[in-house]
Amino acid sequence: MFADTEFSGKHMILDIKEIKNKEFLIDFSKMMELLDQICDTHQFTVLQKVSHKFEPAGYTLLYLLSESHISIHTFPERDYIAFDIYTCRQYSSNRVYDEIHAYLVDILGAKYESPRIIDRVF
Amino acid sequence: MFADTEFSGKHMILDIKEIKNKEFLIDFSKMMELLDQICDTHQFTVLQKVSHKFEPAGYTLLYLLSESHISIHTFPERDYIAFDIYTCRQYSSNRVYDEIHAYLVDILGAKYESPRIIDRVF
Repeated sequence: MFADTEFSGKHMILDIKEIKNKEFLIDFSKMMELLDQICDTHQFTVLQKVSHKFEPAGYTLLYLLSESHISIHTFPERDYIAFDIYTCRQYSSNRVYDEIHAYLVDILGAKYESPRIIDRVF
Repeated sequence: MFADTEFSGKHMILDIKEIKNKEFLIDFSKMMELLDQICDTHQFTVLQKVSHKFEPAGYTLLYLLSESHISIHTFPERDYIAFDIYTCRQYSSNRVYDEIHAYLVDILGAKYESPRIIDRVF
């Protein structure tokens, strides 16, 4: 699971479009349940959460993890969510992120687009 | 400053290396002063801030902006900071981000590397 040869984090950038399950675009408590579940499954430790609801709709959620962070910005008027996860874990493949991406697309009822996964080498 | 033709945010990803002004790697109040100044200069509205100090050293800072977010993770043992800024402003060029990047490199006494600036089209 962890590679020792090089120190880098991995950052996944998702522009999640054409979301059909629109309650996730406006109800941040529903999104928090989903994120908590993802963090639990992949053993990310959530240290702090902050949220802000915008008028007339949409919200931002930031999770401060012991492994780094997750950010979410929703744009209900465009059925779009900007989702990022960055962790400093030494993953040797993109498997965990690919799983998270597939799960999000499924639950949100969104269009599938290839995720952008960036190595952040120190 | 704003383009009307397409709706997209801009996300700047910086892996800031070889930092010489090491106090910024361990003292998050000093970094907050710097971020507050950047937000003031570029008229980003800070809605919430969260921070976490890790043992033995290093910290995470998350700024929730009305324009989206800034995240910072410091790794003092590697003289490295992972810095991100994502805003949903309709910038027609990278000028503002290039200015922020140049300023950070200067103040932190870091190695200059080209920033990664990603358009996040909706």
